[in-house]
Order: sequence, then structure tokens, then C-alpha cells
Amino acid sequence: MAKKPKHAISPTREEDYAQWYLQVIRAADLAESSPVRGCIVIKPRGYAIWENMQRVLDRMFKETGHENAYFPLLIPKRFLEKEAEHVDGFAKECAVVTHHRLEQGPDGKLVPAGPLDEPLIVRPTSETIIGVMFAKWIQSYRDLPLLINQWANVVRWEMRTRTFLRTSEFLWQEGHTAHATEQEAWDETRLMLDVYAKFAEEFMAMPVIKGEKTDGERFPGAVSTLSIEAMMQDRKALQSGTSHFLGQNFARAQEIKFQDKDAEERFAWTTSWGVSTRLIGAMLMTHSDDDGLVLPPRMAPQHVAILPIYRDDQQRSAVLEYCEQLKRQLVDIDFSDGKVNAVVDDRDLRGGENNWQNIKWGVPIRLEIGPKDLAKNAVFMGRRDTGEKISIGRESFVTNVSAMLDEMQQTMFQRSLDFRKSHTRTIDDLETFREFFTPENSEKPEIHGGFALCHWSESPEMNQVLERLKVTVRCVPFEQDEEDGVCIFTGKPSRRRALFAKAY
Amino acid sequence: MAKKPKHAISPTREEDYAQWYLQVIRAADLAESSPVRGCIVIKPRGYAIWENMQRVLDRMFKETGHENAYFPLLIPKRFLEKEAEHVDGFAKECAVVTHHRLEQGPDGKLVPAGPLDEPLIVRPTSETIIGVMFAKWIQSYRDLPLLINQWANVVRWEMRTRTFLRTSEFLWQEGHTAHATEQEAWDETRLMLDVYAKFAEEFMAMPVIKGEKTDGERFPGAVSTLSIEAMMQDRKALQSGTSHFLGQNFARAQEIKFQDKDAEERFAWTTSWGVSTRLIGAMLMTHSDDDGLVLPPRMAPQHVAILPIYRDDQQRSAVLEYCEQLKRQLVDIDFSDGKVNAVVDDRDLRGGENNWQNIKWGVPIRLEIGPKDLAKNAVFMGRRDTGEKISIGRESFVTNVSAMLDEMQQTMFQRSLDFRKSHTRTIDDLETFREFFTPENSEKPEIHGGFALCHWSESPEMNQVLERLKVTVRCVPFEQDEEDGVCIFTGKPSRRRALFAKAY
Repeated sequence: MAKKPKHAISPTREEDYAQWYLQVIRAADLAESSPVRGCIVIKPRGYAIWENMQRVLDRMFKETGHENAYFPLLIPKRFLEKEAEHVDGFAKECAVVTHHRLEQGPDGKLVPAGPLDEPLIVRPTSETIIGVMFAKWIQSYRDLPLLINQWANVVRWEMRTRTFLRTSEFLWQEGHTAHATEQEAWDETRLMLDVYAKFAEEFMAMPVIKGEKTDGERFPGAVSTLSIEAMMQDRKALQSGTSHFLGQNFARAQEIKFQDKDAEERFAWTTSWGVSTRLIGAMLMTHSDDDGLVLPPRMAPQHVAILPIYRDDQQRSAVLEYCEQLKRQLVDIDFSDGKVNAVVDDRDLRGGENNWQNIKWGVPIRLEIGPKDLAKNAVFMGRRDTGEKISIGRESFVTNVSAMLDEMQQTMFQRSLDFRKSHTRTIDDLETFREFFTPENSEKPEIHGGFALCHWSESPEMNQVLERLKVTVRCVPFEQDEEDGVCIFTGKPSRRRALFAKAY
Repeated sequence: MAKKPKHAISPTREEDYAQWYLQVIRAADLAESSPVRGCIVIKPRGYAIWENMQRVLDRMFKETGHENAYFPLLIPKRFLEKEAEHVDGFAKECAVVTHHRLEQGPDGKLVPAGPLDEPLIVRPTSETIIGVMFAKWIQSYRDLPLLINQWANVVRWEMRTRTFLRTSEFLWQEGHTAHATEQEAWDETRLMLDVYAKFAEEFMAMPVIKGEKTDGERFPGAVSTLSIEAMMQDRKALQSGTSHFLGQNFARAQEIKFQDKDAEERFAWTTSWGVSTRLIGAMLMTHSDDDGLVLPPRMAPQHVAILPIYRDDQQRSAVLEYCEQLKRQLVDIDFSDGKVNAVVDDRDLRGGENNWQNIKWGVPIRLEIGPKDLAKNAVFMGRRDTGEKISIGRESFVTNVSAMLDEMQQTMFQRSLDFRKSHTRTIDDLETFREFFTPENSEKPEIHGGFALCHWSESPEMNQVLERLKVTVRCVPFEQDEEDGVCIFTGKPSRRRALFAKAY
């Protein structure tokens, strides 16, 4: 008999992080690749996580005054052409619709027919089509602010794809707003970044750094792009949400004008902001371990798996009744913005496999319940986040389950924050910077890599070093004090540090 | 000064039903046409109705054991080709993606570049791509039933479009299930039709007739298509949801096979079913009147509009305080599957316009509140469904609002049911049939048109008559007794009646 592996997932994070990621997705049954190039199928266990994300974010958007609407999938080419930077950014990788039917060709196979007068682009993002409508809707300062969100699919023809993190089609939300003044639009841009950060930290238990992108990393057509950046367990950064201050760029290109209180005609100030199914990958890489998925309770579709254990029919009926009663107690208990979701897993799998599956699925709490537990009126609890296993009284469990889930949520956040802190360094010279990002040359690779905070200036010298090290500048974090410093790449004076990291 | 029209919507239903429909949409701000051929923009007031529909349907799907997932938007041409009838049905009207980028052409304009090896179709429906995944997921009878739903956008290149009812892109849900036995798949097909009917009747207050489509009206590739049919106020039928028994057609075309309990390999039995944003149009045409939208309370995004009335600042502060207090009371009250949604509308519009807008928006209950109402501790209530206006005590209103909304819901359903009944006739000869569907030739056009229940047989004779009269056979209703009869078109014996109507 083969030796039982110590961990459910092979390879482990240490052995091969990229493969580990894919194997966790597979073991948790979240998604799989599809026969359509670069597109994935999001399976029910993955989609249920997205539904949780949607529900919470949608409520946060509505609480901040936004309304949902829906705009066309297909965008006429001429709309994309209006904003020069924008089209440069997206024309290189878009699905182009050129025909509107299929016809039998000479060999009996179907060929495209009904050529369109003007090609249509499958939306890679919707600034252009939404801008056309905003221009119609906005006439007067009374029509502002206009605060719209859309839940939608978008297509970007990515050459190198990775499940959830980068796929040709993905699901997302895109907020689009128009305002009468520059200040209001800036406030909106910051507000929505704060909403994303709050969601990431309080619901995904994923600490993030808020900041502004440098000129080279802006959204095509934006004046400024803000982002939240998270550290994955391989110490790479993952951009987890962006909020763009578009200034009057799109308003000028699309004639989004209004008559102001003083009867003057002015261009509106616009913003856009989005998060996507990429967040599922981010959450996975933040918390999961070598046994598979670990989900923060507030985002877990299922909180408690009840696993009956019995040897014969007589035991079975008593154990099952106990389990079902327990379930009924649990599903009445408030947790987060809903109730505790508890499931009795009585599938007839081979010895212990139910328990392993629930571990790999990332269910926060497992309760194994057999005749001995009945006798003691107890439950045998396994905690997914710490691996801890203890027997506790049933009533004590029921009373404390909600607080326990909250505590797990908090533990996971704190653990991720500690991890990020221990892998973030303030670096003031280029040699240390190079060494930090070249762990394979080092005697202690485990303490290398992560986030580096350095004085900087946008310059060819910086770009050369970054390219060679495969490091990117993630953002200029908001939370820092100004100080006198010098750019580590050029020696020029600098007042603020940027965040550098290898990134997804 | 122009004479004030008696109704908010012009033309009225009587004057021009098709134009009335579009004007109700416009006055209620639900949607508008977009610059993309055949595609609409669903505006916040329209999308909020869709969100209500989604929320209720999604819960009903989950309660019947279905899980949500997401499959690719773009479908390789070869998948569509596998099922012969299916491709015939959809190849004639689909958006075809042939390139994956845009490049600067010789004249500086962007032209499609990066031709694809195989064209991709923007999904018109997802049987083919989902079938490919089902074939991978289903190995054993233990994997069945497989019960999946998808919320998605689809594109069908319709030549004649009408807002909500028929658009090139629309939003819908599509259920796709696979079963071990024919009976189970049939049961599922019926179950989901029942879910749709329950949703239509109990939530949309729209009575529907359940039945089976005739051979000529089936979904391309299905063995049998079931539908729910509703009568609009112009007495035309609107197909409002379909549930397809696909037999083993798609399973054979796509090799969806499983090993049964007896170790034999068998093809699965599959179903699919869907409803779309068309339901918004159906609900509008069922209930609205010459003053605009009328929404059944269970689908209305807003239940109560509170309209403060005052002449000066002193009145204003007292009236507003009363209104806000009232609102806080109302939003705590349970209604349907949530709470009462009440809004204070204090927008500074010209005299009475707030009241008119809330009428056109279809808000079920309006409360006009001025100093006199404060003095009496009362509210002046206007009911959208009946037009009734009365002054009632504030506490009495608060106590009864939920029951009142329920009663309005019931009244609207009953009124629509009575309307359908009064315009449904059992017809046993061709002459009466012709006259029924040719009201312009009749002396009493108002009692003509609607639903006709007739004995029938699928035949060229029938098709000729129907084509000339622009009438279609909607379905063979389930709820009827078998009886001896003869087809009114051919004289052949018939045991059951079909439902005939002009239709959208």
C-alpha cells in the first residue's frame, strides 16, 4: 500500500505554488478549464462564493447611493475609437463580431455570413457605451451625480490565462459615475476604493494596501488609478480592485456635458471602478493550506458540516436524528448578515472520505458525530483554520457557534496581516532591493521576497531594474508619512515611498 | 393653454396599444433603446424589477435543488453543429466572433485582425457548451441528477425588435439538468413549468395557461416544449416561459453517458428551461393603464411613496418630520418575502408633478401628506391599482399596509384572470374562428379576439388558415378534459383542444 500523504494537496505550497493553486481549485471543485480558449467554467462551489461576494458588495454599493442598470454587451467599433489611450489599451485583445449568421458553405460546413457594416467589440469594459448613454441622460446639474453600477461579463483576449486570476471572459461589476465637480468625482473615487478595502478586509479577511498607481500603471484613459493590493502566500502582490478618477477625459471624448447652476455649459467629471471573479483566486491564495481550500466564514457558502458516524442501521437512525436536530438548531442562529448554514453530509463514501472532502472544500467547522457523542450530548469539532480538534458539549457549541465563526474570521485576518508585515521591508539602497527580489541567490531564501517600500522616481533607470528582476511598482500607499529621501534607482530627491513587489 | 390630457400616457391603449406600451416604458423610465442595433439599456427602475424577479426565482430554483454555475459566453462553431435541428434553429441569427484584436488599417481606422482558426458564436442559448461539460462530469448514476442553473446574457440576431419582448441581447436564466431515467427528466420538465406558473401567478399577478407546444412550435432539438402563456390587455398571447424535455437528443449528440446500477452504459435524459427580461414586458402589458405603469406589490421595487405637501418653511419642517417618522414605521413592517419599501419624495418639482411621476412609475400606494393630515394624524392615500383615494388614520394605515398590499396583489391577479376569462371562447367551427380573429370585419369588435380553444390536428389546412389570420397555436393546455371532437380545420377526429391566439 502506498504511504498515505501527509497533506490532501500535492504539490504543497512549498513544492510548487502555482500547481498547488490549481490543485486546491480542483480539490474544492470551484472551477475547471473549458474547451473555449482561455475561458473557465465556474462550478457550483465556486459560483456560490461569487454569489456571496455579489450579495455583500451589492448592498455596499446601494448603501452608498448607487443603482444597478444594464448596458449592451456589444460595442460598435467607433465608440471605442473616441478615447485614444483607451482604445490603445483594449484594441490589442478584444473579441470582434463581424457577422450575424452562419450559413452552409460549399463543403456543408457552416461559415460566417451576413457581414456587419461595422464590427462590434465584445465589451472589455464599458466606459465607452455607458458614456454614450450618460451624454443623453445628463443635461443639467440637477441630473448629477449619476451613480450607476453594472454586474456583467467582459472579454479580454488574454494570451496567458490562469483560473480566476486572468481569463479571457470574466464576471465583474463596473461602477460608472458622473459628477458636477472635480472634488466630488475624486471623493467618489476614494469612497469606492474604501468600500473595496472594507469588503476585502472585513469579509474576505484579506488585508490590503490602498494607494495610487504610478503613471505607467494607470487604466487607459484615466487621470489616476487607485488600487488595493494584497499579499499572497508566495509573497507576490495581487491587485484586487481598482477605482479610476477619469477626470474629464471621457466626458470630452463623449460630450458628457451639463448646464451648471450659473447657466454655463461644462463637461462632467467621471469615475469608474471594478472588482471581478479574480477575488475568488485572491481569497484562495491568501488563506488556503496544503490540505486545500480555507474559507473565511463570512464568505463561506457553508459554515458547518455535520458528519454522522455509525456502524449499523440501529446506530444510524439515532445518530442521524441527533444530527438533523442539531442542524435545525444551527440554521436558526444569526451569523454575519444571515444565518448559520449547516449541512448534514451523510453521503455513503469510503471511510473518512466525507471528512477529507469537507476539509478540501474549506468548510470552516466540521462536526463528527457518533454514538459516543450522543451519549455525552457532545460534538467532536474540527476547525478548518487552525486544524484544532476538540470535543465540546452540544449546547455549548450551539451557544457559541456564531462567536466562534467571528473569531475564526478575525484569526484569519490577523494571520494574513502578520504574514504581510513579516514580509514587508523598508529598503533604502539598490543592492538590498536586488537581493530582496533574488531569493535564489540568497542563503536565506525564506526571508526574501515580499513587499518593498522604497523612495523612487518614475525613470528609465527604475524600469530597467524592475524589468530585469520581474518586479513591478504596485502603488504609492496612502498610509505613509512624507519624509526626505532619495530614489534608490536615480538618487533624485523623493518625498514618498512606493510599494514594489512581484505580482500576478 | 393646452387642455390638460385626461391620462398621463398618450396614446391610450385603445388608441394605439403598441405605442402605448413604449410610452409606458418611457414614462416609467424602465429602459431605452441603445445605439447598438436591437439592444436596449435597462435603466435603474427597470433593472430593479429584474432584480426582484431574480431574487424570487433564484430562491425557488434553490428550493427545488438546483445550483448556479457559469459557462463561457463564446461557443466554438463545431459544438453548435452537433445537434442538427438545434443548429438550424439558431445559426440563422447569431453574432459571430471571427477575430481577436483590432489593428490600425492603412487609413488609420481600426480593422479586425488576428483571425481565429474557428469562429466563435456568442451564445444564443447554452445547451451545447453545457452539454460538453455534462459529458465530462457525468460518469455514473451516482452523478445524477445534475441540476444546474445559469443567470446570463444571450444574443439572438433578431430583425424586428421590441423593448423587453424581443431584443438582440437579453438577460435570462437557463436551467440545464441531466437525469438517469426518462420519467425523472419528464418530472423535472413539468416541475419547472409549475415553478414558472407559480411565479407568474403569485408574484407577477399574471394568470397563465400551462400546456405543451405543438410539433411546429417546439424548441429546436427538443422532444417536447412546455410553456406558460399569458393574455395581454390587447388580448394577444405572450409566451412567458418554456421548459423543454430534450429526451436523449442532446445526450446522444454530445455523448452524455453514464454507467447505470446494472453496469450498463446509457445515455442521460436532459431538460432545459428559461425565462428572461421579457417577463418585465409581460407584467407591464398585463397590468398597466392609461396613466402608466401599474406594478403588482410583490414585484414593485418601492411600495409606498410619501409625498410631503407644504407652502412655507414652517409647514415644511413639521410635515417632513411627520413623513420621515412614518417612513421609519413602515420600513420595519414585513411584506411578501421582505419589508415594506417606503420612500419620502421631497423633490422640488412643479405643482403636483411628484404625484404624477409616482403614478407613472407604478408605485402601489401614494400618501400625500400636508398640514391638515398632521392635524388629524392621518394620511391621504391613493391606490395605484384602482385609482381610489381616501383619507385614513395614520395608525390604521400602518397596521393595515401589509394586508392592503396583499389585497392589491390579489385584486390585480383576479382582474387579469377575469379579463382572460371574458376573452376566451370555445369555438367549434371554422367560420366563427375566422370571425373571432377578424374583429375589423365585425359589428362588435370589442368582444372579438383573445384566446380560442378548438379541436385541431397538425395539418397544412390548419397552417394555411392560421397564416392568413396571423394566428398561432399557443399550446395544448394541460387543464382540460378529453372529449370527442373534430378538428375545425380538417374534420379529423380530435380528443383535445388547443389554444389559439394572435401572439407576440
